[in-house]
Amino acid sequence: MSNLKNDRFIRALLRQSVDRTPVWIMRQAGRYLPEYREVRAKAGDFMTLCSTPELACEVTLQPLRRFELDAAILFSDILTIPDAMGLGLYFSEGEGPKFKQTIDSASDVEKLSIPDPADKLSYVTDAVSLIRRELDGDVPLIGFAGSPWTLATYMVEGGSSKTFSRIKAMLFEDPASAHMLMSKLADSVALYLNAQIEAGAQAVMVFDSWGGALTTPHYREFSLAYMQQIVDQLIREKDGQKIPVILFTKGGGMWLPQIADTGCDAVGLDWSVDIHQARQLIGDRVALQGNMDPAIMATNPDVIRQEVSRILADFGQGNGHVFNLGHGITPNITPENVAALVDAVHEISAQYHR
Amino acid sequence: MSNLKNDRFIRALLRQSVDRTPVWIMRQAGRYLPEYREVRAKAGDFMTLCSTPELACEVTLQPLRRFELDAAILFSDILTIPDAMGLGLYFSEGEGPKFKQTIDSASDVEKLSIPDPADKLSYVTDAVSLIRRELDGDVPLIGFAGSPWTLATYMVEGGSSKTFSRIKAMLFEDPASAHMLMSKLADSVALYLNAQIEAGAQAVMVFDSWGGALTTPHYREFSLAYMQQIVDQLIREKDGQKIPVILFTKGGGMWLPQIADTGCDAVGLDWSVDIHQARQLIGDRVALQGNMDPAIMATNPDVIRQEVSRILADFGQGNGHVFNLGHGITPNITPENVAALVDAVHEISAQYHR
Repeated sequence: MSNLKNDRFIRALLRQSVDRTPVWIMRQAGRYLPEYREVRAKAGDFMTLCSTPELACEVTLQPLRRFELDAAILFSDILTIPDAMGLGLYFSEGEGPKFKQTIDSASDVEKLSIPDPADKLSYVTDAVSLIRRELDGDVPLIGFAGSPWTLATYMVEGGSSKTFSRIKAMLFEDPASAHMLMSKLADSVALYLNAQIEAGAQAVMVFDSWGGALTTPHYREFSLAYMQQIVDQLIREKDGQKIPVILFTKGGGMWLPQIADTGCDAVGLDWSVDIHQARQLIGDRVALQGNMDPAIMATNPDVIRQEVSRILADFGQGNGHVFNLGHGITPNITPENVAALVDAVHEISAQYHR
Repeated sequence: MSNLKNDRFIRALLRQSVDRTPVWIMRQAGRYLPEYREVRAKAGDFMTLCSTPELACEVTLQPLRRFELDAAILFSDILTIPDAMGLGLYFSEGEGPKFKQTIDSASDVEKLSIPDPADKLSYVTDAVSLIRRELDGDVPLIGFAGSPWTLATYMVEGGSSKTFSRIKAMLFEDPASAHMLMSKLADSVALYLNAQIEAGAQAVMVFDSWGGALTTPHYREFSLAYMQQIVDQLIREKDGQKIPVILFTKGGGMWLPQIADTGCDAVGLDWSVDIHQARQLIGDRVALQGNMDPAIMATNPDVIRQEVSRILADFGQGNGHVFNLGHGITPNITPENVAALVDAVHEISAQYHR
């Protein structure tokens, strides 16, 4: 279907037949790798790493040199968009991401402009082009962005939050401004992901990390509707190749059929979801990506193998499964355990693809 | 049905007819009340407040003097049981609860003994008796405890956790010890809640605050199974009055029918759950308690009233709804907004009970 040497990941997302279940790991380019920590230390700060295409390319490729992963994912951060909008992203040690400016009022929302990816975000598309060149067709490259709701939480709260009280006050007390904010973000994300696709991303994923903090009606109105707006605007085919879209709402287990209804190709599952039930509920309309508990990565190869085996069996026979963790891998994990995961998925999954 | 002047709460839990939907608020005795902060400051530390029956009684009654609540809930903490097991509970400012000793090994679990409530926890039953006397039948008194899984997370992690990596490693690598720990905790909780019932608690609630952090199979095996073990041991009727049991798993929206199957009387709903769907899914086997987003309490009386109205309409006509927030009220809320909530529930709900 393509010039890819390994196209399992793309085929699985499109629910086509594969010989093995493909696997990649959220945050696979990350702190659990000594070679990542080395590059990170040289770069100085996290944003330098993200915004220097050569460094972003290097850390993107590192996990592929160690493990037989079926996809690469661009090394970047979901908050590049609000940063390009002028809010001033920075990272303070131990406190996570922060913004120098926050969105506090209707006029703040009105003033926000949609960033032209060719202008403020060219460091990202440059990284994508470079990674594609370096990958040389070994595996596909995933582009990504944060969901409008998730980005908005950081922009209004000024950083991470436990209660989301400021952004939720906006949803309840000034829904018109909230809608305008989400709509601008949806358009920005769509432009940004399309620019990644034009630069070479072969699949894209939208991370709705905080959708699970919403009530069901607010999830539909303020998160899902704007992921829909993104899906509707995305380039879905390029040079004769389909570009699959994955939507992932952490804590969204109750809303899986609605997520599938957006017209995305695949739905990400966190680890709380029963993948067998999810498949029954959604049917074979979309592929499923997930859903191992990241905590299991801290155990040992035998336990990891057992859990891989359980999840593959729970998904069962047939196409449309991309194996992954249900959330990002944590810094305390050993590379040996990651190798155990990747190898177990490939070895055990063959029986489900006969 | 009882000597209660207001028995709406008990009747709703038993799915009997009521004139208005009853309402109480998780953490209704808490820091958002100036009179609470005053007593708390005098007591010095939080554990003194919990362990002095007169003070616990005073703060339990405070919200009832201000608002037309349909139930009182014992002022205490879920971690009294591990403290009574000898782990040494303390509260460090800004960091939440901590234990001096943690459970690290199979032998630590074996050494744990089930606390006799008449011995180490008599301060709690004394508070219950005193509160019952002071309430004088105005509204029922709720007793409570943490779920075995939730208590175990604190005992193994030594305090709050984001990833639960230590306790999850135990579930995966030493499930026999994990089962022994949960079983000892279930028996301890059952004894403790029965002692509260004997002292005068007229309903009991089990808080599974961290059940939502588990995979579906682990939730069933390590959390739900032990809540079942508690339900099976509880006193369900005393002096001719039914003692209803409420189970609440935060983040448990996907598992509501299984929770209802334990034989509890009511299931607590966090705010992410759609209460209309939950009722359809569970049927009228149990009552539902919840499920307003606590963030809404920071807005204003008009918005609160609208959201109360939406939730009451979503539950719809008929019996078996106890109104509550989907999680505890936060310290930043004004008493005026709490009054708006309570009054709105009583005023708007009459139409659903004709």
